[in-house]
Amino acid sequence: MSNTPPTYPKAQDCDAVQLGWMQGNPPPTDKLVRFADMSMRAFPQSRWASSHYRELVPTKNIARGALPVAALPRAERKDLDAVAFTPRSGSMGSDERMTWAESLHANYTDGIVVLHQGRIVYERYFGALSAELPHIAYSVTKSFVGTIAMCLVHEGLLDEAALVAHYVPELAHSAFGNATMREVMDMTTGLQYSEVYTDPKAEIWDYARAGAWLPKPTDYNGPNSIYEYLQGVKPQGQHNESFSYKTINTETLAWVISRITGKSIVDNIQERIWSRLGVEQDAYITIDPTGTAFGGGGLNTCLRDLARFGLMMQNNGQACGQQVVPQAVVERIRQGASPQQFTPAGYVTLPGWSYRSMWWVSHNPHGAYMARGIHGQAIYIDPTAEMVIARYASHHIAGNMGIDPESIPAYHAMALHLMAHPAP
Amino acid sequence: MSNTPPTYPKAQDCDAVQLGWMQGNPPPTDKLVRFADMSMRAFPQSRWASSHYRELVPTKNIARGALPVAALPRAERKDLDAVAFTPRSGSMGSDERMTWAESLHANYTDGIVVLHQGRIVYERYFGALSAELPHIAYSVTKSFVGTIAMCLVHEGLLDEAALVAHYVPELAHSAFGNATMREVMDMTTGLQYSEVYTDPKAEIWDYARAGAWLPKPTDYNGPNSIYEYLQGVKPQGQHNESFSYKTINTETLAWVISRITGKSIVDNIQERIWSRLGVEQDAYITIDPTGTAFGGGGLNTCLRDLARFGLMMQNNGQACGQQVVPQAVVERIRQGASPQQFTPAGYVTLPGWSYRSMWWVSHNPHGAYMARGIHGQAIYIDPTAEMVIARYASHHIAGNMGIDPESIPAYHAMALHLMAHPAP
Repeated sequence: MSNTPPTYPKAQDCDAVQLGWMQGNPPPTDKLVRFADMSMRAFPQSRWASSHYRELVPTKNIARGALPVAALPRAERKDLDAVAFTPRSGSMGSDERMTWAESLHANYTDGIVVLHQGRIVYERYFGALSAELPHIAYSVTKSFVGTIAMCLVHEGLLDEAALVAHYVPELAHSAFGNATMREVMDMTTGLQYSEVYTDPKAEIWDYARAGAWLPKPTDYNGPNSIYEYLQGVKPQGQHNESFSYKTINTETLAWVISRITGKSIVDNIQERIWSRLGVEQDAYITIDPTGTAFGGGGLNTCLRDLARFGLMMQNNGQACGQQVVPQAVVERIRQGASPQQFTPAGYVTLPGWSYRSMWWVSHNPHGAYMARGIHGQAIYIDPTAEMVIARYASHHIAGNMGIDPESIPAYHAMALHLMAHPAP
Repeated sequence: MSNTPPTYPKAQDCDAVQLGWMQGNPPPTDKLVRFADMSMRAFPQSRWASSHYRELVPTKNIARGALPVAALPRAERKDLDAVAFTPRSGSMGSDERMTWAESLHANYTDGIVVLHQGRIVYERYFGALSAELPHIAYSVTKSFVGTIAMCLVHEGLLDEAALVAHYVPELAHSAFGNATMREVMDMTTGLQYSEVYTDPKAEIWDYARAGAWLPKPTDYNGPNSIYEYLQGVKPQGQHNESFSYKTINTETLAWVISRITGKSIVDNIQERIWSRLGVEQDAYITIDPTGTAFGGGGLNTCLRDLARFGLMMQNNGQACGQQVVPQAVVERIRQGASPQQFTPAGYVTLPGWSYRSMWWVSHNPHGAYMARGIHGQAIYIDPTAEMVIARYASHHIAGNMGIDPESIPAYHAMALHLMAHPAP
């Protein structure tokens, strides 16, 4: 065995439809994608699974409600595929230019939509994804949870300075107990928990088994739910020293939200956001063995509906003629947190960024900010360019640092192009 | 241990909301309802599970499509709760009269809607069910599959006289191989398969484990899908001797439909029926480990949408101004099959009935016919009274023979009442 890293087919060569995953009545045995054997998490089967989660695991509906669909006028244009940018060097090892169209395959994009001034200027689907099919958003989910938490702060129901144990006594003896809600929201807690996806011993896999988003071994005797897992998390380092991306902060935040509101995080997402955006379709979320939703990464939505969430943020919290999220909440999120606390986390693709209330804030001249999920899920909001990009992807790399080089420069180039060449 | 049969609480005393199943963040351990420990199939937990299947097992969406919702005008009236009838004796042991309102609790009703001349004259929900929540329809699913099959017959794509093996060669060596499609559709096949729910050794439990609607034992080495199970079904008796209710006929029919159309049974339900009724909500269906839908009993819908399916049948196949199902198909279903072949099956609550193309036909003076599912799921169509009743229930008894005594006389009494006292 050499130490050569595994090689992966190009996106064009592992199209989920062309590969025939789960096709046929019944599908041939070698084309099955399943939860129990973990094939749903193997690449390239993951390219099919990403838009078929509900066929693999239990899920909870998030209803679109009774609002009429909020129209997204179409102003599609042919010049955008040629928008060129220089991928961030380091990953590419050259300064070669890349076009927007090329970046889509480079990023194993399943679907992407670009809104400019509230209109769809670009929309594409690849492989197993179609406009009507929900796709897993992974940690983009966190930005929904963080936004709801900030609404509760705005309403005076959630005290950022209060300790977690104040809201969830069950967490008093965990590392979360003496963390403030602000530290949880900004992920500056000191927790013994690693989220390095390439490390099979990272604690994220214990959390995953507890929550049953990975199968449990037959001799498993660990915690049997997300919240049971949280109660056993041990401290490491100090709170409020530096940003460290740990999904379990969001689960704790979701738990606090449910305790404050007396409603599950699902009901909160549905009532406070999803039913107020004029989305086209119901969304859904994956759940643990106690029926508790994965606030850290379980949301599945259709792509245009995800863009509508971004558009609401771009529009200072307004959608369907209503103030869905207070403008002050959007502004506080956009302001970001401390880049100094962010830098030690080592995100070389995000220099000068910060993490605020479960959003990634660029602090670039446009004030762009993002919701981000593993394998390339993204909402990119550029308030200056009045641009929202929503992207679903099934990259073989989990961590976005491996995907950012051909993504973030592309988004910014698109913003500059749309500003320089607005539609008539 | 005595031989006293188990006693069950009255419906009013096991309301799923009042019992607190799956309530709380997280729910207490003793209030969990789950798939793995089979609590979802235990009574009274089943009263919650019946409207929360997607939170317990993988499911596949059945989209409502782009049609506007077909309005069901409301003409609710207060006289219907008092409609009285005599429950079929034998179960009650008396000729005491019962009111419609009393029958709802007697039948552990979760929801019921009565349409008269296309208008909602009565609608009630109990316990965990609400108007926007899909409920498991169990074998009511079969009537969707049978209706689609009859459409294919009408289109000349399915030959009723052809043998199953002609369409699905994989079944050639099973008991199905030399059965005609008509025998499959009317369940007059000779199969070694018992569907006696109270017998733990009945083959239905093997089918259930194969399809993973029951957990598999750790030492399980049987078939791993519905269709793998079908291939091993052995003959017993002769085809075309008598009716014998065996769900695996519907699974075979669904397989044939998917082979003829090149589309899954889910796509067929969605394209041929669900997207053409103007329903309010998406439906969904449970699936086996190969992603194959349970054509025999996996459908979940909202109650009013189920009533819309019945209304389309009442309206000779028309809905939303279109001919969804050919009138000739509806007429053939309504005609029923041979009561002589039906009688030996011993359904004492259904004297003179027959089973045709996955529908139960009363041959009563009104020409009423039904779709029926275990634990009390029902669509009752009375063309003479222009009445459709859709009912979801979570009775502790699986077989409808235990539920019919307080149901079928109630339906007929309601029909007579509505005919005698039409709304203004």
